[in-house]
Amino acid sequence: MGEEVSNKQIILKHHVTGNVKECDMELKKTTIKLNVPEGSNALLLKNLYLSCDPYMRSRMSKTEGSYIAPFTPDAPIMGIGVAKVLESGDSNFQKGDLVWGMTGWEEYSVVTTSQTFFKIHDKDVPLSYYTGILGMPGMTAYAGFYEVCSPKKGETVFVSAASGAVGQLVGQFAKMMGCYVVGSAGSKEKVDLLKSKFGFDEAFNYKEEHNLDATLKRYFPDGIDIYFENVGGKMLDAVLVNMKVHGRISACGMISQYNLEQTEGVHNLFCLITKQIRMEGFVVTDYYHLYPKYLEMIIPQIKAGKIVYVEDVAEGLESAPSALVGLFSGRNVGKQVVMVSTE
Amino acid sequence: MGEEVSNKQIILKHHVTGNVKECDMELKKTTIKLNVPEGSNALLLKNLYLSCDPYMRSRMSKTEGSYIAPFTPDAPIMGIGVAKVLESGDSNFQKGDLVWGMTGWEEYSVVTTSQTFFKIHDKDVPLSYYTGILGMPGMTAYAGFYEVCSPKKGETVFVSAASGAVGQLVGQFAKMMGCYVVGSAGSKEKVDLLKSKFGFDEAFNYKEEHNLDATLKRYFPDGIDIYFENVGGKMLDAVLVNMKVHGRISACGMISQYNLEQTEGVHNLFCLITKQIRMEGFVVTDYYHLYPKYLEMIIPQIKAGKIVYVEDVAEGLESAPSALVGLFSGRNVGKQVVMVSTE
Repeated sequence: MGEEVSNKQIILKHHVTGNVKECDMELKKTTIKLNVPEGSNALLLKNLYLSCDPYMRSRMSKTEGSYIAPFTPDAPIMGIGVAKVLESGDSNFQKGDLVWGMTGWEEYSVVTTSQTFFKIHDKDVPLSYYTGILGMPGMTAYAGFYEVCSPKKGETVFVSAASGAVGQLVGQFAKMMGCYVVGSAGSKEKVDLLKSKFGFDEAFNYKEEHNLDATLKRYFPDGIDIYFENVGGKMLDAVLVNMKVHGRISACGMISQYNLEQTEGVHNLFCLITKQIRMEGFVVTDYYHLYPKYLEMIIPQIKAGKIVYVEDVAEGLESAPSALVGLFSGRNVGKQVVMVSTE
Repeated sequence: MGEEVSNKQIILKHHVTGNVKECDMELKKTTIKLNVPEGSNALLLKNLYLSCDPYMRSRMSKTEGSYIAPFTPDAPIMGIGVAKVLESGDSNFQKGDLVWGMTGWEEYSVVTTSQTFFKIHDKDVPLSYYTGILGMPGMTAYAGFYEVCSPKKGETVFVSAASGAVGQLVGQFAKMMGCYVVGSAGSKEKVDLLKSKFGFDEAFNYKEEHNLDATLKRYFPDGIDIYFENVGGKMLDAVLVNMKVHGRISACGMISQYNLEQTEGVHNLFCLITKQIRMEGFVVTDYYHLYPKYLEMIIPQIKAGKIVYVEDVAEGLESAPSALVGLFSGRNVGKQVVMVSTE
């Protein structure tokens, strides 16, 4: 029997409608026995970094038939994290391994889904990167851009939420591909980052633009070949009328809509026909078979400083609710991570 | 110099906003010299059948930057028709040839776009079919279903505007492919036709359904693999929540929206992501290279009675405005054609 230690958790108090607030979550002090149940193939994890991701909002609603099960009230919030294996009932993992996968928002977790965890082999990069550029958001940018958008050199690319966990990478991938790329974000600081750090050709603060259609025409006088959709709503409507014939839209997220009880209507879908646009939603897990190939490409680029990644790291499990809520107002600059422990 | 004869025309009086009405068009009596201008490669055509197609509504608006130029006020309406060549300045065509292509709503037309016309080789089928099953709508159904939707045996297919020029064929193609297919239409007569004549597994009158979501769940308890989109608006919203994972939507038309000055908003696009749906707009002209292959497939099926086609034929050029307007209230049963002359 393992040692019993204290285990702080962030629990969801109740299902959420409308804007998610910090008070929808609370810190709960519990204890945990540091062992894996006899005969189980579970992993006992010490959580190091937790990822705050927009999709988590939908798990906070009590939605029937969603693509992903709602969170259980009074239980810890679940999310992707980087963790250290303290004990393993699965022979594929050993004590001391570093892993990433779906864990709990707590100090220690016992997870029974070890087969969904990825072992971390390269530790020569910040460990937190496995919640971002080397994890789910990185694969999202990679699969969404290269696989869904079928980009070609010289094409014009627009990325919304462009300084976020996924968008900052899409912009850099687009530049590597020889595309012209413009990003939108919600503050001057982010817009500066897009141009100075991530190499976007142009960037704008959507909050300061009163006519998004005119804005897009300014940056894309000949139209948009590829739209990497992270926000939905009004931006999508403005993009549709500015797409080129045979344009492609990869629908990755629609963060502007997640807190709305009634989503905004999109009015310009007829453009799909007139411009023969392909709009395709995707879920990154469909592309996880490409993960080894992706790591092989991206890790050398990171080490050579050719691809950069900006994180917004909140310290301590206590800061997690605020960090998560901040995503929806765009308070984070770069990928939002919560550091629970450094080892 | 050719003989000068009277040439009745249907002209568009002015650009249209909102519902198109018969009085937006008028019959004009003109004359025409029955010859092709010296040295030109034009065709002099006697128009036999004219096609009424929903896309024509967008040419009646004064829309800048549309995919197809607006009609010119005071000039004859342009549309697809079957015609006889009376004189040809293009060596690819001879006097007496039957052709189909973009002609004028008038008795005789001189067209300078002979390269866009198709010669009619098989006259063992009703000539009017070249405005429908053997023409643009047929190719639309063929390309939209087989090329855009990537159907597989056993999949579930939903077709809106299912008794129309395109929908009735999509349903029959889906059955040939071994799919389960349901259609929606706007009257009992059309619903009966879908089931008794075109072989749809089920059909419903959308005007009698107060909750389209519930209706679709009744016919597709396990969801929809393929939606052949002809209508847009509320139907699209209801379909989105009933699609299966990895479903496909071919956006062919959105007739419910064409007369609206402000289109309805579509609210459920987030389903594209959660269900990883591909929604793709297409324009049939992108697929005209497949036309010979299509004819080779479809003509024997027609002759063998395995594929049927229902037309709604209005007699006389005078009836064309009313026939066109009727499309938008669904007055037509089957493909709407105007017979101008039988030879």
